[in-house]
Amino acid sequence: MEILLVDDFEEALFVLKNLVRQLGHTTLTANDGNEAMKIMRNSNISLVITDWEMPGMNGTELIKAIRNEITSRYVYIIMLTAKGGRSEIVEGLEAGADDFIVKPFNPQELKVRVANGERILQLEKNLAEKNLILEVANEKLTAAYQQIQRDLEAAAALQQKLLPRQNAVIGNYAFDWLFLPSKFIAGDILNFYQIHENYIAFYLLDVAGHGIPSAMLSFSLSQMFTAEAAASRILTPEFRNTQSLENISIENFLSHLNTAFFKPEDTSGFFTILFGVIEISSGRVKIARAGHTLPLLIRKGGEATFIKSKGMPIGILDAVTFEEHHLELYEGDKLIIYSDGITECANGADQMFGTDGLVRFMDFYGKGEVKNLIPLLKDSLIRWKGGQEFNDDVSMLIVSR
Amino acid sequence: MEILLVDDFEEALFVLKNLVRQLGHTTLTANDGNEAMKIMRNSNISLVITDWEMPGMNGTELIKAIRNEITSRYVYIIMLTAKGGRSEIVEGLEAGADDFIVKPFNPQELKVRVANGERILQLEKNLAEKNLILEVANEKLTAAYQQIQRDLEAAAALQQKLLPRQNAVIGNYAFDWLFLPSKFIAGDILNFYQIHENYIAFYLLDVAGHGIPSAMLSFSLSQMFTAEAAASRILTPEFRNTQSLENISIENFLSHLNTAFFKPEDTSGFFTILFGVIEISSGRVKIARAGHTLPLLIRKGGEATFIKSKGMPIGILDAVTFEEHHLELYEGDKLIIYSDGITECANGADQMFGTDGLVRFMDFYGKGEVKNLIPLLKDSLIRWKGGQEFNDDVSMLIVSR
Repeated sequence: MEILLVDDFEEALFVLKNLVRQLGHTTLTANDGNEAMKIMRNSNISLVITDWEMPGMNGTELIKAIRNEITSRYVYIIMLTAKGGRSEIVEGLEAGADDFIVKPFNPQELKVRVANGERILQLEKNLAEKNLILEVANEKLTAAYQQIQRDLEAAAALQQKLLPRQNAVIGNYAFDWLFLPSKFIAGDILNFYQIHENYIAFYLLDVAGHGIPSAMLSFSLSQMFTAEAAASRILTPEFRNTQSLENISIENFLSHLNTAFFKPEDTSGFFTILFGVIEISSGRVKIARAGHTLPLLIRKGGEATFIKSKGMPIGILDAVTFEEHHLELYEGDKLIIYSDGITECANGADQMFGTDGLVRFMDFYGKGEVKNLIPLLKDSLIRWKGGQEFNDDVSMLIVSR
Repeated sequence: MEILLVDDFEEALFVLKNLVRQLGHTTLTANDGNEAMKIMRNSNISLVITDWEMPGMNGTELIKAIRNEITSRYVYIIMLTAKGGRSEIVEGLEAGADDFIVKPFNPQELKVRVANGERILQLEKNLAEKNLILEVANEKLTAAYQQIQRDLEAAAALQQKLLPRQNAVIGNYAFDWLFLPSKFIAGDILNFYQIHENYIAFYLLDVAGHGIPSAMLSFSLSQMFTAEAAASRILTPEFRNTQSLENISIENFLSHLNTAFFKPEDTSGFFTILFGVIEISSGRVKIARAGHTLPLLIRKGGEATFIKSKGMPIGILDAVTFEEHHLELYEGDKLIIYSDGITECANGADQMFGTDGLVRFMDFYGKGEVKNLIPLLKDSLIRWKGGQEFNDDVSMLIVSR
């Protein structure tokens, strides 16, 4: 390595230089502290052997200057001194010398002390190098990760645009919803819209899994389920004449979806959906369930009860039928549909929020206004989970009359 | 810090212990090297002050044992010796001591030498700690990044499923395509299918931007553009009677798309598309272009020429019209549609592959078989780019008769 030798006595410097070069090192020399500092500022020298007594800036002053100014690297300093006394050694070490050699010195001692300095410097260099490699890797990873995060945020913004407005009212029916993707974008999606002046359609669907592939499918499904597209499948040809709920077939729509999405060679992209239609004038409701969680009905002032019906998820089996369920919403009633991200939300002790938890929540808070229910449920789930990061997408749609 | 003191002479150990404790350190003591090694193995001690001459394992042997066995941390060793001679000091340092103090010693010297050892240990500890923090951060980042990568790979697999088969032949028409997403999933997508026994539809579209949001849109569009959906928009009511190309309206389909996708408040999700229909029996082709790159026509044995027509991208302006272009494909002719990821593919010198580059490529290789053209173009683009990572999605669809 390159070693800086500092001595005002030229002959001593010459001898030292030869000894150090014999050890296999290259050298730079300076005759006093000021000259040495100039070299230190403009080089990467990490090992200095300096004399004590010099004109201008002496050895201890040089050591202090190095410790003060050269902070980007560790400099190992060996002090050469003719002074044999203990207190001088103490003074040199206190100034910040790492080691000292008493003149006249044994070449073997010089060799060992220089080797020792090298050993410590090497140890630090290894650590610093590993540090740098890790820091660079870290920066690259962080940049790559942030790039994807930004991309996911943009995708999330795109998905959010598909969601209906909050606290919407259509006719006498109030809608509110909760949508919390587990990671930016969700495999869940929900919507509601008028498909006819007297009919509102609503749905909540949950694509198997979560993350980007599920979100791609749910995004795609949501874009496909426009009011126009839903109406064209749900309103049967007879509806044109009767305009009656009896000629609205959700079963028809779900069967069509199953035909379109079932691929015998690949059933990984299946999804569950609950689809419903409300007759605005009467409050009569038709719902059909394709493998989805059971909806909850809360009668005005009553307890939450599950509505049961049969139906496989979309895209798992070839020939499936879906059962339509009929009910009536009276003033003050609430119909609640949701994804299993709510009931299967596990707390720190691996206990699920559960259907029990949901019923308990609804029995406690469900009598209040729809617009308060969603924020309360969100808080409740975050408390249960112990944080805002859910393992599965969380979604809910509440319709109340 | 905790310091291990090793001396066989109890009185000396007692004095040393008191001095070291006065410096604010805690101590452990051992009477010889073997006892000291037992302590070293079962503790985290990093500073040792040891005597030279001891029964059993002496000072230099202890130093060698520590250097040999305790490798998980750096141990700073100060040797205490009554021997004043230089060669003994050399021997101690050669064994691996970091410093030495000649007995009887000055308490000030002990203080400075211990402080020096602490300084070096602290320096290393800081580096090691920073290292550990970085390593842990690195691991977490890597895990998070890999999780997203896996998710993106799954999304890519899902998107790949939407692609048509390679080297397909429908009637006398051969199709081949290139699809290279810039990052796993693409905002480009392409497809071809029969929409009637005498008609094949084909398209290539490019959603603005790239990455996850664009891929979500292109995925969604591809799922919407089923043969059935395309047929229902392209085949006009008159087609049922005439079954003629004259009653096929791509313009109708593109206008419908623009109406469905144009949102005055948000035109960020626009896309370009080139859509075409081939009359199988005659080779007559209708194409319409919505802001897309100009398609290339290569007549059998001839040069590549661009086909020009007007049309804005889908989703940018409210009322737009699209121009249909008519041509005929004869045996040996090729029609080539592609995304700007090819023409705008920049090399290291920031030069684009360009429309010129594409024409030159096609003039050179375009006379060969379709199935050879795509691999050749892929190689050519990778050579141009100097790697497999493209900044934008790359896609091409070739139809030949």
